[in-house]
Amino acid sequence: MDELQQLADAISLLPGIGRRTAARLAMHLARHPDEAAAPLAAALEAARRNLAVCTLCGSVTPRAANPCRLCSDPRRDDTVLCVVEDPGDIPLMEQSGEFRGRYFALMGKLSPMRGEGLGSLRLPRLIERAAAAKEVILALDSDVESDATASYIRHALSSRLPSLRITRLALGIPAGSAIAYSDPVTLSRALRGRTEM
Amino acid sequence: MDELQQLADAISLLPGIGRRTAARLAMHLARHPDEAAAPLAAALEAARRNLAVCTLCGSVTPRAANPCRLCSDPRRDDTVLCVVEDPGDIPLMEQSGEFRGRYFALMGKLSPMRGEGLGSLRLPRLIERAAAAKEVILALDSDVESDATASYIRHALSSRLPSLRITRLALGIPAGSAIAYSDPVTLSRALRGRTEM
Repeated sequence: MDELQQLADAISLLPGIGRRTAARLAMHLARHPDEAAAPLAAALEAARRNLAVCTLCGSVTPRAANPCRLCSDPRRDDTVLCVVEDPGDIPLMEQSGEFRGRYFALMGKLSPMRGEGLGSLRLPRLIERAAAAKEVILALDSDVESDATASYIRHALSSRLPSLRITRLALGIPAGSAIAYSDPVTLSRALRGRTEM
Repeated sequence: MDELQQLADAISLLPGIGRRTAARLAMHLARHPDEAAAPLAAALEAARRNLAVCTLCGSVTPRAANPCRLCSDPRRDDTVLCVVEDPGDIPLMEQSGEFRGRYFALMGKLSPMRGEGLGSLRLPRLIERAAAAKEVILALDSDVESDATASYIRHALSSRLPSLRITRLALGIPAGSAIAYSDPVTLSRALRGRTEM
């Protein structure tokens, strides 16, 4: 059943989808050609025809609107650049309602374990964008690889743009969460970053 | 960006894929039209054109070979019917090398919590198939819903086919696993099912 295997192979190219999940999804798609496979195939075709990657932030945008809506909005602040790992993080930052500057997606993070080095981080492009800003906010995850990525970028930017302000998202207890469920590292960072009230 | 949302919607129709994962995968597919979206679209098209559902076991089979390879293999034993929840479980059972009978996929399990009742279990079809067998092996998962499904099927089959042997996979410690990592329920079932050596 080559078609089933090929479908599983195409699915397992997706990030975070393992071999077993891919086999399960392929089976589901093959068993439901009209309810599942057809709408997915149509949506893929429409996406390939009509979507593009924003030349500025790296996010997805309609082919007819590049740079994207956020990058071309004249009301947004050009002097603050928010750096995210993945373009998918941009809508989440927008939902916070706290940020009115521009975005830049790194497309990953430094990950020597997975052989991901500096090439995929679009660093030269970031330096170019940062040169036009007063502040760069590193809105990265809070794991080891993201910490290393943040340090690396901070060094790369500050050595070339000494007057640039470089900040990072606060580390602390998530909203709605309890001390009892917080790990020691989170608590120690929440303590170090405590604010006046 | 309607196309991105539509793609995420089509992906979130897949079982076990939540809204966030669907959005992330849609973004990935939109950003990689040639490396990810094109092979997936082609594989979906080929699967829709060439694959079908086996009329006997419910598994996926080439359109040109229905009933499927396992259901039409004359060397397999018609008197033993292995009942699985999902057709995806069939290759796993085959890999065990222990079974040479026929298969039947329930397409789910009883799940009152998710509103899944008997309709989706293909019970009338199972009774029909079981009437031609001497033994039905229930190769179901070992969670509460599967236990309820097994009880229900055992009752439904034995009341109609009193001479049918109905068995279930042994419950016990997984191969290669340690007592230290086994939960109490697994241990108690492994004890109750202990074998001579």
